[in-house]
Amino acid sequence: MNLLTPGPTPLPPSVLKAAAEPILHHRTREFGKLFDQVLEDLKTVYRTKSTVLLMTCSGTGTMESAVVNLLSPGDKTLVHSTGSFGDRFAAIHRAYGLQPDVVAEEWGHAADPEKLRKALRSAKGWKAVYLQHTDTSTGIVNDLQTLARTVREESDALVVVDAVSGLGAEELETDAWKLDVTLSASQKGLMAPPGLGFAAVSERAWKAVETAKLPRFYYDWPRMRKSLQASETPFTPAVSLVAAQAEALRLILQEGLENVWKRTASLAAFTRGEMGRLGLKLFPKDPADILTAACFPEGVDGKALLNALREEDRICIAGGQEKLAGKILRLAHMGFIRKPDVEAGIAALARRLPKVRA
Amino acid sequence: MNLLTPGPTPLPPSVLKAAAEPILHHRTREFGKLFDQVLEDLKTVYRTKSTVLLMTCSGTGTMESAVVNLLSPGDKTLVHSTGSFGDRFAAIHRAYGLQPDVVAEEWGHAADPEKLRKALRSAKGWKAVYLQHTDTSTGIVNDLQTLARTVREESDALVVVDAVSGLGAEELETDAWKLDVTLSASQKGLMAPPGLGFAAVSERAWKAVETAKLPRFYYDWPRMRKSLQASETPFTPAVSLVAAQAEALRLILQEGLENVWKRTASLAAFTRGEMGRLGLKLFPKDPADILTAACFPEGVDGKALLNALREEDRICIAGGQEKLAGKILRLAHMGFIRKPDVEAGIAALARRLPKVRA
Repeated sequence: MNLLTPGPTPLPPSVLKAAAEPILHHRTREFGKLFDQVLEDLKTVYRTKSTVLLMTCSGTGTMESAVVNLLSPGDKTLVHSTGSFGDRFAAIHRAYGLQPDVVAEEWGHAADPEKLRKALRSAKGWKAVYLQHTDTSTGIVNDLQTLARTVREESDALVVVDAVSGLGAEELETDAWKLDVTLSASQKGLMAPPGLGFAAVSERAWKAVETAKLPRFYYDWPRMRKSLQASETPFTPAVSLVAAQAEALRLILQEGLENVWKRTASLAAFTRGEMGRLGLKLFPKDPADILTAACFPEGVDGKALLNALREEDRICIAGGQEKLAGKILRLAHMGFIRKPDVEAGIAALARRLPKVRA
Repeated sequence: MNLLTPGPTPLPPSVLKAAAEPILHHRTREFGKLFDQVLEDLKTVYRTKSTVLLMTCSGTGTMESAVVNLLSPGDKTLVHSTGSFGDRFAAIHRAYGLQPDVVAEEWGHAADPEKLRKALRSAKGWKAVYLQHTDTSTGIVNDLQTLARTVREESDALVVVDAVSGLGAEELETDAWKLDVTLSASQKGLMAPPGLGFAAVSERAWKAVETAKLPRFYYDWPRMRKSLQASETPFTPAVSLVAAQAEALRLILQEGLENVWKRTASLAAFTRGEMGRLGLKLFPKDPADILTAACFPEGVDGKALLNALREEDRICIAGGQEKLAGKILRLAHMGFIRKPDVEAGIAALARRLPKVRA
């Protein structure tokens, strides 16, 4: 299957091989060395000197951890949402009895810093602002640097960023942009199997953790930080995925992080051009580099087309989520997805497009 | 490394191979088929007709899920603890503001049904009783059948069981023993890499879930149950671990679950005999079949011995936890651990024992 999906993404052979190494015990020096290496390499990819935490969970788990470790009942927060993952941040807040203020952009538009500034000025006292780096549901990338600076200029709120899909593939500077909490996961830009989540946590965020009162156990960050002293996690981690992640990080750093960003950007430009050639309009106004979202023309049954691609051509391109189901396609080109894979996807798409007009 | 540890346990080659298959996308028919098969085979291993849920997390995550999905603030519960994992159940309750009543056995002793009966009679109104199947921290197995019957005879409380280490290796009957929630994880008796957790949830437990008010998002069982209709999980699962688990379950069912139980029991009897031959006293009064815990003789530096075994002989035997550190060893013989592995461990232990008397 040619996976052109925004996570899980296909894996390099050496990463698959690492996942199949005999299992290590998580309380041994051998695992500890591997674990420390992963955290060290993640810091390089995050561009941070902050503590990086590793959890066995999906990206959503890390998002929940960034709610329960930072907040207390009654805390005010702002969620600036650009799609279904921003909405998920708000839903997690509500599950814990918090009522976040939500600034929602029209799907396909990046978060508007001036809208954020206005919100920050109109109401005070937000403990944290929850943002997204890229949003795979709408195919956009946010101008995180400006957004984070706006939060700093107007408030003392912590800047919490969902970088689940973009980290390792698209420009992101945790320290230089002053992001307090930056969340990610193994299965997208980081080229490893799904099952690991990460959080880079600034000293400012650790201060907030000290007073945060929402309940937590599995996701308790202080406990994770304490375990790091012994190169361990509090609970049994997914050790084979840690081994796979170690190899994937090695590949990323061998290529050079900025080279990966450039390669991804160049593949994005190519893909956007090809979509135009096929007569498909880009969906997002502010397209990300990790994936391209494009609208199906009127009269095309998008769901049927993607099904046929998957079942007959064995090419997996994602469709739209929620209100966009059947209306857009989302073709990823991050991580181990290379130009020939994208070309094969676009060729198959071109072949099928005329056939599926209703 | 010869892993004789109570999780993660070593993996059969075909399970390692399955973990290294190209990654599947979790919203495809291909993954759905694999996922359904895993849940079906888990039902066979659980001996249940109830819904089985799969989560990407460690065993502790499943324990937390069995607190947040069943309980509301102010609920009374009973935790019958036989070691550090029972204590963890209580700690999870406390993290969520609940004050469970705890009946704690002396470490090494199984839970006493008469003590449980007395507790159930002395105070009423427990919403759930939290029990353990086997406890790897003390090496015991509980008489779950009698314990669960006692709860039913004396109360309406739900029976919640931590079967993280024993499921698939040591006798357990979810339906016949009327267990309401039975938790497990991939990396012990189930012979897969760590990173997946499971819960078999009875209809009676689902009723309780409807009114449970503790906050939850990632661990929300109703959302997981709803996703099952589409052969999916709510959030990206650890797909490569699901593939590995599918193969491990195939091996267990091919051998026959009761044959696995018998093989494990027979290996346990052998190991207990060998410990006696070495002059090592068994630690538990009620030993489990999945692992053998034995006391180091007076004057032996247990930590140094296990370190030497690990670093020089490349044999990994676990030590004691918390107050038992340095005092006991815990040698597992479940899953893919076979007699020659155990023999090698015991031989190396015998060789080193005289050398490490202080």
